[in-house]
Amino acid sequence: MREYVSLEEARDMLLHNCQPAESECLDLTAALGRVLCEDVLAGENIPPFDRSSLDGYAFDARATLMASREQPAVLKVIEAVAAGSVAAQRVTENTAIRVMTGAPIPEGADAVEKYENIELSGAEIRITSRFRPMDNIIKAGEDVREGDRVAEQGMVLEPPLLGLLAALGVTRVRVYAKPAVALISTGDELSDEPGALQPGKIRNSTRITLQGFCTRLGADPVIIGTARDEVTQIMALLEAGLERADVVITTGGVSAGDYDLVVEAVRRIGAELLFWKINIKPGMPTLAARKDGKVILGLSGNPASGLVVFQLLAIPLIRKMAGHRAYHLATLEAVLLDGFKKPSPARRFLRGQLVLANGQAGVRLTGRQGNAVLSSMVGCDVLLEVPSGSGPLPAGARLTAFRVD
Amino acid sequence: MREYVSLEEARDMLLHNCQPAESECLDLTAALGRVLCEDVLAGENIPPFDRSSLDGYAFDARATLMASREQPAVLKVIEAVAAGSVAAQRVTENTAIRVMTGAPIPEGADAVEKYENIELSGAEIRITSRFRPMDNIIKAGEDVREGDRVAEQGMVLEPPLLGLLAALGVTRVRVYAKPAVALISTGDELSDEPGALQPGKIRNSTRITLQGFCTRLGADPVIIGTARDEVTQIMALLEAGLERADVVITTGGVSAGDYDLVVEAVRRIGAELLFWKINIKPGMPTLAARKDGKVILGLSGNPASGLVVFQLLAIPLIRKMAGHRAYHLATLEAVLLDGFKKPSPARRFLRGQLVLANGQAGVRLTGRQGNAVLSSMVGCDVLLEVPSGSGPLPAGARLTAFRVD
Repeated sequence: MREYVSLEEARDMLLHNCQPAESECLDLTAALGRVLCEDVLAGENIPPFDRSSLDGYAFDARATLMASREQPAVLKVIEAVAAGSVAAQRVTENTAIRVMTGAPIPEGADAVEKYENIELSGAEIRITSRFRPMDNIIKAGEDVREGDRVAEQGMVLEPPLLGLLAALGVTRVRVYAKPAVALISTGDELSDEPGALQPGKIRNSTRITLQGFCTRLGADPVIIGTARDEVTQIMALLEAGLERADVVITTGGVSAGDYDLVVEAVRRIGAELLFWKINIKPGMPTLAARKDGKVILGLSGNPASGLVVFQLLAIPLIRKMAGHRAYHLATLEAVLLDGFKKPSPARRFLRGQLVLANGQAGVRLTGRQGNAVLSSMVGCDVLLEVPSGSGPLPAGARLTAFRVD
Repeated sequence: MREYVSLEEARDMLLHNCQPAESECLDLTAALGRVLCEDVLAGENIPPFDRSSLDGYAFDARATLMASREQPAVLKVIEAVAAGSVAAQRVTENTAIRVMTGAPIPEGADAVEKYENIELSGAEIRITSRFRPMDNIIKAGEDVREGDRVAEQGMVLEPPLLGLLAALGVTRVRVYAKPAVALISTGDELSDEPGALQPGKIRNSTRITLQGFCTRLGADPVIIGTARDEVTQIMALLEAGLERADVVITTGGVSAGDYDLVVEAVRRIGAELLFWKINIKPGMPTLAARKDGKVILGLSGNPASGLVVFQLLAIPLIRKMAGHRAYHLATLEAVLLDGFKKPSPARRFLRGQLVLANGQAGVRLTGRQGNAVLSSMVGCDVLLEVPSGSGPLPAGARLTAFRVD
C-alpha cells in the first residue's frame, strides 16, 4: 500500500484494477445512452439506391448534350414517380419521368432538372441547359457505403447514432451492462431522518449527489446504507456492497484522526489497500482497496472533498467499467476569470464553470472553495488545477481545467 | 402566415406560442434532471452549528493570549466529542475538549488546534501559539445561511443541487411536468419493417433520433405513427398528436413540390399556419402552425435537414415547455478548423464538433454536409453559422457556433 500518491498514480491504480462489465443484447429502441460493445459495419448502403435530391424530371444527360435556350432538348413525360415508388418504365433518349424528392432514379436516367427550371407544355418538357451524369442525384452509398465501419466499440449510443443504425436496418445492438456502484455512507453525525435535526447531526447530502452522478454516468447506483462509526458495521456494509455491486464507494471515516474507521474496516475484511491519501486539496484523505477483483474507493465525508475526488477518480473509473472508449477526463487550458487569493502549498482543484466567449475558454469560480462547502458544486462543470507551490492567482492566470460534465 | 422567415423570427413565433407545462410535486430522490417550478429558500443553516474543521482540541482562544514555545498554555482535557455527538460539559479558561472533524464546538470554546501540533502529557495539553476566535472552526451558515435563495425557478436539478437541497432538509420539490412531444413520420417511402428493403423504400431513421433527443431534453416522446402520403391520414395523425401531447412534430411532406401534404393537412384540420419556409440551408422547407393553444412543427423528411432544424428550433421550444430558465441555444465565436469549399448563397448551418485546445474554441466538421447526410450528425455538438452570401471558407475562419449538446 502506498501513502500520499499523486492524483495520476491514484487514477491509474484504480483503472488498472477495473474492467468493463459483461455485455447484453438490446433492442435499438431501448439502447439510448448505452455503450456499444462491438463495432458495427454497414450491412447496406445509405441511401439504398440512387435518388433524386429534388422535385423535378429525370432523363438521360446525353439528351441535353446540345441543349440551349434557343434549342432546348424536348422530352416526352411518360410517367411520374413519388418517393417510395418505382418507375414502371425506362427512360429513353426522348423521354423523361417526373420524380419527387427522394424518389428512385428510373432506369435509363442519370440526371434530374428541378421543377422550377422546366418549361412544361402538355406532355412535353423543354430543358435549356446541359447536364452531366449524376446532376441532382444522390448516389447510392453516398452517405454510408455497405461495409463502412459506422460505429466502434466504446461509442455511446447518442440519438444520431441510433438514427444511423436504424437507417441501416440494425434492430438490436450488443452493449455493455451497466456497472452497479454500491454507495455506503458512514458517520455518527449523519441523519437520514426528515424534520428537525438533533444537536450535533447533519443531513446526508452526499448520497443523493453520488446517486445522481452514477445515474448520469450510465451506472446503476445501489444504496447499501449508512453505517455508524463502528468498524464492524462498516465491515458488514462493505461486504454487502462487494456482493451486490461491481465497485464500492464509501464516504466518511477517512479523516486523519482517531476515526479512520474505513481504513480499519477495509483491512479487516481482507481487502488489499492500494493507496491511502492523495497529494491534492481538497480530497487528501482518500483510500482505495481491492477485494475479489473489485475496487473499493473511500472518499472523505466532507461534502466538497468527497465530491471533487469522485469527479477526478470515479468518473474515469465508472466510464471505463461502463465500456466507454474515452474514459479519461478531458482537459483544456483555460483562463481564470476571477482571482483566487489563497496560496496553494499543495496541488489544488478549484470548482468552476466553463465560460466560452470571444473564442476563448474561461473559468468562473462557482463560489467559496472550502472542503465543506457544498454550494459551489452547483453549476460546477470544470475543476481548475492550481499547481502545488502556487501563490495567490490573479484574474487572467492560465490553468488546466478538467471537464467533469 | 409568413413565408421565408428568418431563423430568429421562426424561433420567436414558436416560443411566443408555447408555455411551460403544469407542475407536480416529487420526492427529491425522483427529481434528477427535472426543472424546478419555484425558488427554494434555505430553511436552515449549512452547517447547522459551529463545527471543527479538523481533528484536534477546542478551547477558549483567550487562554492562549500569552502562549509561546517557552510558556505554553496548559489546559486540562475534560472530554472527547466525536462528530455526531455533543459535549456534556462547558470549556472554561483552563480546560479543553477533544473534538473530531465535524464535531460541534463545545460551549465556552471558540478555537481549535490540530491534533498533530499539540503536546499531550497525561490529561493535559500544551498549546504553544496564540489563537484568534474562530480559528479552525467552520461557522454555522458559512456554506448556506437560513433564508438564502439556494435555487431558482427554471434551474435543472443536477446531482449537486439535489445534494444541496438534501443538506437543507428538503424532501419534496415542485417541478414542471415533462412536456409530451408527439412524433409523426410521413412518407410512402418510409419502411418500419425489419429485414430487406422493398425497392424505392428507405428506413425510418429520424423517429428514433427525435425520440432520443426528446428524452435527452427532459420531454416524453409520444410515437403517434407513420402516415402514408395521403392528406386524410396525416390529418388523423395530427389530430391524435394534438390530443395526446403538448406539441406535435412531423417529418416529411413539406418539400417544395406536388407533395406538400403536411401544409395541406395542417390547413384542413383548422390549424393556423405561423410560417412556411425558413431562409436557411439545410432545412428551408419547415412549417409551423398552432391549434388549440398547441404548436405543430413540420420538419423536412431529409434526415439532416429535419434534424438540424429540430436542434435550432425544437431544442429552445422544448426547453421552454420543460420550464428551463435558459432555453435559448448558447452561442460562441469559434474557429473553423477545416475549410469548407462550397459558397453559401443562403445562410447555412454546418454540423461540427467543438474542440477546446490551447484556450481556443475550434470546430471540426463532422463530415459531409448534404441535406440527406445522416452520418455527420453523429458527434455533432455545434452548428456553425455561415452567413448568407459567403464564399468558400478557409480553415481559420471565425464563425458563430450554436451549441446543441
